[in-house]
Amino acid sequence: MNATVTARAHTNIALVKYWGKADTELMLPQTSSLSLTLDQFYTDTTVTFDDQLTADEVTVNDQLLSSEAAKKVHNFLNLVRQQASRTSFARVTSVNHVPTAAGLASSASAFAALAGAASRAAGMDLDRTALSRLARRGSGSATRSIFGGFVEWEAGHDDLSSRAVPLIEDVTWPIAVVALVLDPHHKKVSSRQGMQSSVTTSPFYPAWKQIVADDLDAIKPAIRAQDFTTLGETLETNAMRMHALTLSARPPFSYFNGDTLTAMQTVKGLRAAGLECYYTLDAGPNLKVFCQTADVSAIQERFARQFGSDNVIVAHPGPGIQFLNKA
Amino acid sequence: MNATVTARAHTNIALVKYWGKADTELMLPQTSSLSLTLDQFYTDTTVTFDDQLTADEVTVNDQLLSSEAAKKVHNFLNLVRQQASRTSFARVTSVNHVPTAAGLASSASAFAALAGAASRAAGMDLDRTALSRLARRGSGSATRSIFGGFVEWEAGHDDLSSRAVPLIEDVTWPIAVVALVLDPHHKKVSSRQGMQSSVTTSPFYPAWKQIVADDLDAIKPAIRAQDFTTLGETLETNAMRMHALTLSARPPFSYFNGDTLTAMQTVKGLRAAGLECYYTLDAGPNLKVFCQTADVSAIQERFARQFGSDNVIVAHPGPGIQFLNKA
Repeated sequence: MNATVTARAHTNIALVKYWGKADTELMLPQTSSLSLTLDQFYTDTTVTFDDQLTADEVTVNDQLLSSEAAKKVHNFLNLVRQQASRTSFARVTSVNHVPTAAGLASSASAFAALAGAASRAAGMDLDRTALSRLARRGSGSATRSIFGGFVEWEAGHDDLSSRAVPLIEDVTWPIAVVALVLDPHHKKVSSRQGMQSSVTTSPFYPAWKQIVADDLDAIKPAIRAQDFTTLGETLETNAMRMHALTLSARPPFSYFNGDTLTAMQTVKGLRAAGLECYYTLDAGPNLKVFCQTADVSAIQERFARQFGSDNVIVAHPGPGIQFLNKA
Repeated sequence: MNATVTARAHTNIALVKYWGKADTELMLPQTSSLSLTLDQFYTDTTVTFDDQLTADEVTVNDQLLSSEAAKKVHNFLNLVRQQASRTSFARVTSVNHVPTAAGLASSASAFAALAGAASRAAGMDLDRTALSRLARRGSGSATRSIFGGFVEWEAGHDDLSSRAVPLIEDVTWPIAVVALVLDPHHKKVSSRQGMQSSVTTSPFYPAWKQIVADDLDAIKPAIRAQDFTTLGETLETNAMRMHALTLSARPPFSYFNGDTLTAMQTVKGLRAAGLECYYTLDAGPNLKVFCQTADVSAIQERFARQFGSDNVIVAHPGPGIQFLNKA
């Protein structure tokens, strides 16, 4: 009897960034990080281990992947098989409800959903902390997508201690994220390459660790106190300091494009006009703007005028991993 | 008998940047820096001290400045009067042959020329080292414009020790700088404000001092050996690390615009196509591209196609301060 399990995981946006691995095998990060899980972007993944299969079979968005393209999934399934003492191959069907174009990490929701579905399909019953540790092995940011709301990924020092911890799962704070699609193309420098280059070549990297520690110390009380100004100033500054690590690498690189810079100016203009909002961005040009729900319409309208309404997506705090059926 | 002296000074482009003051009164920098004086951009300044005048009279590009606009010149003249034990006011006429739009520091050539003309008109006969110290009080980068070719501004620790030293004045190395005019507007954050903000708020600033020391150690032998690759990689990396200091300030800011990013990509494309060139930029969006003279035409043509030929200016190594007449 082969169990078929479907899991849904949402993506997340980091307010204090993860930028650098300490251990590439165990996927231990150089620093802790903190994110907000979002409701609009998620991945549904169904897994069945089947003795009849002669290889893992991975379908993403109705497209069967080549064994080369499915390599990361295959490696991840090997880890699950090892932990569950299973030998059979798996059928994986995954649908991303994350517009890749939005520059939101689909790998976060993808590996969180895969960790949930594959571990249960293989007969394991992991709690969410254990799931976050497993998801981490697929993609660092997936660690945080196991939980909803505000989540901290504690860096830890080994496989056991490097895991997600929910800060506030049920977010009652009326805040929103306006995601701007500024470039539908794939990034030229992957986050994996980008952070590795920053760790090994930026002379600013050692100071980054202290920045993250200080920003976590500032942002966690701000989240608990619903202090939007401190939240916003901290996340914006943290993001720009992460991007300073790309400019200071050798050779230097940047994830910005012209629209990124223009949208940043718009955020400053909105603030000057009394609409409080703050931006962040990851390994791509697409800005995500934090605001309070009372201001969403005005801010959304402003960006729709600038970049077209199709390129402006509003999201809110989202839930942690969900299991949609159990065989 | 009132001496009238005219001096010409050329602007310079920093290869290892000056970004931060240690003493705002004496204009002592946090670090040493290194530049190339350019032939295309210069300022001619004529000074006469005249007992008949009841105030300093400053004309720049045929326009009489208000006392408010002339404040920095007036303060500088006070310093000259103090050093020369003079009391009379001065007539200053200055013509900038630096397209402000090119984003090349006209204050460097302006205060270097003013230091030369005013000190001689006041009866002092300063050698070039002393002139560089005097020019420093008007504008940091003016320190380097007293000499031609490759010039180091030694940070020093007081008024006497903070001065320019020529590295190679008569440059026989066939290199050129292609200056791109990408935005004719004045910068929103002056270099004075920008560097001050970086010094006081960027947690990366302490590491910047070591970067400059290392880059000077790398670039000086490269200049002597005419090693263009080391020169180029060092100046490009140094510039991007300076700009990382703006992104990492609180609040963050940037001198880039969309064309800056596009032009950087063009430089990378030219390199990939075998045309070796490297970019730098200062407190503004306008890229300056270093290349070897054999490649100038091809590189100039490429950028003229992209930004229009009027916005592409080719410069070569230029001379130090010149006195055009002596009364």
